[in-house]
Amino acid sequence: MNRNQALQDQAHALGLDPMAPLQIGGRYLPVARDGRCLCVSGQIPRVGTTVVVTGAAGRDVDLAQAQHAARVCAWRALALLKETLGDLDRIDSVLRMGVYVQSAADFTQHSEVADAASDLIHAVLGPAGGHARTTVGVYQLPKNATVELELMVAANDGMTANGMDHSGD
Amino acid sequence: MNRNQALQDQAHALGLDPMAPLQIGGRYLPVARDGRCLCVSGQIPRVGTTVVVTGAAGRDVDLAQAQHAARVCAWRALALLKETLGDLDRIDSVLRMGVYVQSAADFTQHSEVADAASDLIHAVLGPAGGHARTTVGVYQLPKNATVELELMVAANDGMTANGMDHSGD
Amino acid sequence: MNRNQALQDQAHALGLDPMAPLQIGGRYLPVARDGRCLCVSGQIPRVGTTVVVTGAAGRDVDLAQAQHAARVCAWRALALLKETLGDLDRIDSVLRMGVYVQSAADFTQHSEVADAASDLIHAVLGPAGGHARTTVGVYQLPKNATVELELMVAANDGMTANGMDHSGD
Repeated sequence: MNRNQALQDQAHALGLDPMAPLQIGGRYLPVARDGRCLCVSGQIPRVGTTVVVTGAAGRDVDLAQAQHAARVCAWRALALLKETLGDLDRIDSVLRMGVYVQSAADFTQHSEVADAASDLIHAVLGPAGGHARTTVGVYQLPKNATVELELMVAANDGMTANGMDHSGD
Repeated sequence: MNRNQALQDQAHALGLDPMAPLQIGGRYLPVARDGRCLCVSGQIPRVGTTVVVTGAAGRDVDLAQAQHAARVCAWRALALLKETLGDLDRIDSVLRMGVYVQSAADFTQHSEVADAASDLIHAVLGPAGGHARTTVGVYQLPKNATVELELMVAANDGMTANGMDHSGD
Repeated sequence: MNRNQALQDQAHALGLDPMAPLQIGGRYLPVARDGRCLCVSGQIPRVGTTVVVTGAAGRDVDLAQAQHAARVCAWRALALLKETLGDLDRIDSVLRMGVYVQSAADFTQHSEVADAASDLIHAVLGPAGGHARTTVGVYQLPKNATVELELMVAANDGMTANGMDHSGD
């Protein structure tokens, strides 16, 4: 399936408007790039101007709500990459996903929260969505968000016959 | 304005001695490099051998003190890059800033803390200072520091006519 | 000393079976790669299917136990790189080590915990083991692990006469 279409489909599954502008806070770029390497800033589950899942997993929100937060964060990260690259087909690989879960003292299902984000990345990018991942439980997050998620990806410039054959350069 | 001079000016604004040696703890390098990519180790607000801002934001220190800590961290990261590269003009872009804020349970102004660091980076590097950023609230930091900050940047070797034209390689 | 042999020696020193399969949780890759850059997913101190050091440093476990956890994490990260690359001699440099220590409220010896991991990396990789490092204290970790550790390294393809001379490309 086309990756850009898959991103739209995921928006509908999450109840998001795929055409709405992506609100970004703070004095930084949504995506920074050098050559093939792109870093996406940490995304919280913001829809419009509202952070839709707040509080600590295992105390204020349950696993399913934290997973929804993780999916919204992952969707936003991919949508920002689409804005930057024009076309998600330029992504050759996802090098790293960092997932930060606001956690109650006894909440240890961080991997299950992050799996929801990983599944969305795979659903949109297919085999190129395979990624290394670091998931930790933090004490607080900006605007009391339940999850924050960042990506580092490798992308081509769309000029080569086969965008996938860069990895052995 | 010259970036190296701007770094000195920022030291004066922060009350730091720009010539003082930068104390580094632990068994690691201040900056590691592969080709264009440089990673700066997590910096705490150390001046000489003293960590000058300690404790949790929102409990032991207020927003303004946490912002001062963030500026000292960002200054140190840039000073270490200057030591490594010889000249800050070799920096083509800042790919990622990671900001870790020791937080009280109800402190959620992490972005406002990190903005102080982002502003300093912009003041020194100008347009090349644009960066992706991930900011989280953590439970503790080494030596009870209030803020820890790391950078990943792309730099050239100073041999090309225009150091900015690498990004499309 | 040969790096692959040094990795085996470290396994014996830690009481690990260097031939045992490395259990990986979650829906992600142990190592993701683009060209020279490899990211290793966050490792917890898992031996077989058991996380061998759990709880907060400074409350449930002491410094020595947290250091043991850090060594097991670092060993796993190197073992995964050996699986991916075939030969640890292909590593040219370690760009970044991220260390997350589950901490009691008053535990501030995070650097001492991470030093145990840094020492193991140096013991196995020699001079190429020098790395930038970010160490923070977090509130919880997946499966209540005491430490989580991730690596980003630069590696060559083993085809060049001298694997160390890429860094100035």
